[in-house]
Amino acid sequence: MTPKHPIDSLTTLTDLVLPSETNPLNNLFGGELLARMDRAASIAARRHSRRIVVTASVNHVAFNRSIPLGSVVTIEAKVSRAFTSSMEIFLDVWIEDRESGNKTKANEAIYTFVAVDETGNPVAVPPLEPQTEEEKSRFDAALRRKQLSLVLAGKMNPHDATELKALFL
Amino acid sequence: MTPKHPIDSLTTLTDLVLPSETNPLNNLFGGELLARMDRAASIAARRHSRRIVVTASVNHVAFNRSIPLGSVVTIEAKVSRAFTSSMEIFLDVWIEDRESGNKTKANEAIYTFVAVDETGNPVAVPPLEPQTEEEKSRFDAALRRKQLSLVLAGKMNPHDATELKALFL
Amino acid sequence: MTPKHPIDSLTTLTDLVLPSETNPLNNLFGGELLARMDRAASIAARRHSRRIVVTASVNHVAFNRSIPLGSVVTIEAKVSRAFTSSMEIFLDVWIEDRESGNKTKANEAIYTFVAVDETGNPVAVPPLEPQTEEEKSRFDAALRRKQLSLVLAGKMNPHDATELKALFL
Amino acid sequence: MTPKHPIDSLTTLTDLVLPSETNPLNNLFGGELLARMDRAASIAARRHSRRIVVTASVNHVAFNRSIPLGSVVTIEAKVSRAFTSSMEIFLDVWIEDRESGNKTKANEAIYTFVAVDETGNPVAVPPLEPQTEEEKSRFDAALRRKQLSLVLAGKMNPHDATELKALFL
Amino acid sequence: MTPKHPIDSLTTLTDLVLPSETNPLNNLFGGELLARMDRAASIAARRHSRRIVVTASVNHVAFNRSIPLGSVVTIEAKVSRAFTSSMEIFLDVWIEDRESGNKTKANEAIYTFVAVDETGNPVAVPPLEPQTEEEKSRFDAALRRKQLSLVLAGKMNPHDATELKALFL
Amino acid sequence: MTPKHPIDSLTTLTDLVLPSETNPLNNLFGGELLARMDRAASIAARRHSRRIVVTASVNHVAFNRSIPLGSVVTIEAKVSRAFTSSMEIFLDVWIEDRESGNKTKANEAIYTFVAVDETGNPVAVPPLEPQTEEEKSRFDAALRRKQLSLVLAGKMNPHDATELKALFL
Repeated sequence: MTPKHPIDSLTTLTDLVLPSETNPLNNLFGGELLARMDRAASIAARRHSRRIVVTASVNHVAFNRSIPLGSVVTIEAKVSRAFTSSMEIFLDVWIEDRESGNKTKANEAIYTFVAVDETGNPVAVPPLEPQTEEEKSRFDAALRRKQLSLVLAGKMNPHDATELKALFL
Repeated sequence: MTPKHPIDSLTTLTDLVLPSETNPLNNLFGGELLARMDRAASIAARRHSRRIVVTASVNHVAFNRSIPLGSVVTIEAKVSRAFTSSMEIFLDVWIEDRESGNKTKANEAIYTFVAVDETGNPVAVPPLEPQTEEEKSRFDAALRRKQLSLVLAGKMNPHDATELKALFL
Repeated sequence: MTPKHPIDSLTTLTDLVLPSETNPLNNLFGGELLARMDRAASIAARRHSRRIVVTASVNHVAFNRSIPLGSVVTIEAKVSRAFTSSMEIFLDVWIEDRESGNKTKANEAIYTFVAVDETGNPVAVPPLEPQTEEEKSRFDAALRRKQLSLVLAGKMNPHDATELKALFL
Repeated sequence: MTPKHPIDSLTTLTDLVLPSETNPLNNLFGGELLARMDRAASIAARRHSRRIVVTASVNHVAFNRSIPLGSVVTIEAKVSRAFTSSMEIFLDVWIEDRESGNKTKANEAIYTFVAVDETGNPVAVPPLEPQTEEEKSRFDAALRRKQLSLVLAGKMNPHDATELKALFL
Repeated sequence: MTPKHPIDSLTTLTDLVLPSETNPLNNLFGGELLARMDRAASIAARRHSRRIVVTASVNHVAFNRSIPLGSVVTIEAKVSRAFTSSMEIFLDVWIEDRESGNKTKANEAIYTFVAVDETGNPVAVPPLEPQTEEEKSRFDAALRRKQLSLVLAGKMNPHDATELKALFL
Repeated sequence: MTPKHPIDSLTTLTDLVLPSETNPLNNLFGGELLARMDRAASIAARRHSRRIVVTASVNHVAFNRSIPLGSVVTIEAKVSRAFTSSMEIFLDVWIEDRESGNKTKANEAIYTFVAVDETGNPVAVPPLEPQTEEEKSRFDAALRRKQLSLVLAGKMNPHDATELKALFL
């Protein structure tokens, strides 16, 4: 299959924080943001694979900044690495100040999706060729994250996780 | 106030058509699309004015193409003309085919928003300077639409609607 | 087909403004009202045609009055004119004061629906015979609105829009 | 306080059964209908009392007919009897066949609401004067229902429930 | 069929009161609680019968305590008696104080469900054998409630409602 | 502060998969499950701390099994380790077969919450004392996960992550 670039799957979901989506501190519920990011990531995965896609895993997501009621939230999702039938999606979440228009990074997240056929069986997806420096760095880190995920799931011996092991030696 | 360009308010809302948003033919409900466009338009108006904004009117919206369950829908909203305290927002709605990746224009819509202060009173917004040919053509047509809206509301005598009248003479 | 009267399609949707439907000024979101009006209009169109109906267009809708959280909102929808397979629906929206019980007109809107068969193809609908003075006046204006809609869509030459042209001469 | 008539509180909520509101048999969830009836009943109670109202109890509600996806459902709510600060609301639920336009009674329900002030304390409501035969019969039965409710809650000795007792003797 | 015990169908639904579910006094809407209880009761009925189940009726439900925004609400549902194809479900609703952790009974409710096959026809369900004192007392009362329900629906002569009649004599 | 046990924060959220929560394969959307787990985890964190709590991070979540429309899903959440003001919550998700009643583990997830005061500043929480073997094993692993999270966030040098490093040596 012809390789694709991250820009080919770039998905932008800009929307408001509505009153029904806030917690007792009047900030966006973590669970709501997770659901929105899942939808944006699934569209990016679909644009890369042109297949039905299903969520396989959510990697570590840190909620560094609270997002108040009425905020404009922009989620940008791009495929960061493609494996046989799975794709890692990197998401950047921004909020902007209404008065100054300044944008602030609210958090990052990484989701993994699998491309499937109509019966739910995995199918192959095109490889990804990163272009910018950031895309290359995320592409390299994706392999360490995949090994970490296999180790945590007990499907890989930590000693075989060469990329990951190097981090600690 | 310093003029702004349409690109300054460009808002992209890409999202899925979910099962809870469909009619008996399994297409997106007209009402749901209207609500999504309203949110996207309100963000564009806010980016132009950096103020609280409220919907003032929805101009003629044609639903030319039905949008099936599971579609990826992209709404692009940009301010097309600014008046004293009101802004006309032009929206383009696209759907894309999952297999080919082709994008098709599903419909266009025009909303008008007013910028207000915390007590709901109108406040001035920056002027708009169109840049592309399409932006200039939409900017010109906005005046005719404003006159039409005033005539339909009985707030302008049709004979004073010079821009509009010219269309029919 | 036997003609029908506007009263045959009268649809009343009285409901509360819930907290999840409000904007930062604690008033009903424009988009939510558009969605409710779409459901009421679709029921009126269905009562007139006894067919599946889909939204074809939304005409100019002005939001003259904000509708606060907790309001009782009454939407009344009636077919105002029937064409071959399309129907114009006129909607009146009222809010009532809890303490005095007084009803105030909040806004008006006009939607157009098309009757379709199970495969989505247009089918004929009964003609409409207006009865009250208001119904007759709305029936007459509907033709001008249809011409306006065709002109704006570039499907009718302004010079052929005789009803509309008369407004400006 | 001046007495009111049931017609003064008549509330009509006509709406569609949406896909998100259905159970595995593709019929309206019982819980959704209960929630809609609660909103209609609260508006009727508010129209009678012109006060803030809160649900006090739901009497026996039988779901005699299933209501399929896409149905038009009409809920009619009217105050059937007023006590010191509480009101019994009688609801009739109708569905209509799209092709024939025939209306069928789907079920009946009875809710009780209490009028309260801003701090949640009960306040007096106007008495109700029934007018039609059906309204009179529901008015009379309301007293038996109130006694039943007090007996079931252990707040009235069955032997003092004279109206109710008469049923069984 | 082998009898089952109430504990076999015990269903616990612990969830938050979200902002979109509150009334003007900032308490949980009665209608929302009715919908949640319907879902919990349907799961209990399904666990008892291992069939598709549909709501048949809601018995008297009293809303004794308001449930404020942000509360943790625990609904416990258990089958209290099984008849041929119907099951009575008893629900206990608790709220807990965030600071002290104390649980308070907010209300009780009784729903009746019917087990059906894929075409919606009633099917037999296992009998229920109560175990605790409370379960036995609810089991006995269920027969009186069933008679009451038949009497109120005009399907049983009050004089034949022996269990119920005994209450008043 | 007096230590608490995992059982003190056990939170059970049993609910149905509703039609509005499913993807094109008719399974529960990953994003919806993430949102439900967030609510259950926040209640567990609140029960441990008796404070307002906000989502700090979501650790690796694998979606091993798809969860079909109409399923009964049980989420069990318990605090697995408490740090100064943060708590790790371990979630087990089960689905049950309607006909056999068998329960199957659908997935596991780990969320981290922080306890805060009314102004959003972190406050101390009680320590956790694990009791069962599983609780002890999760308690030990929590420290490795915390180090991993700090390493991934660039807030800890991999060489100082002694617990984690041991895994790879």
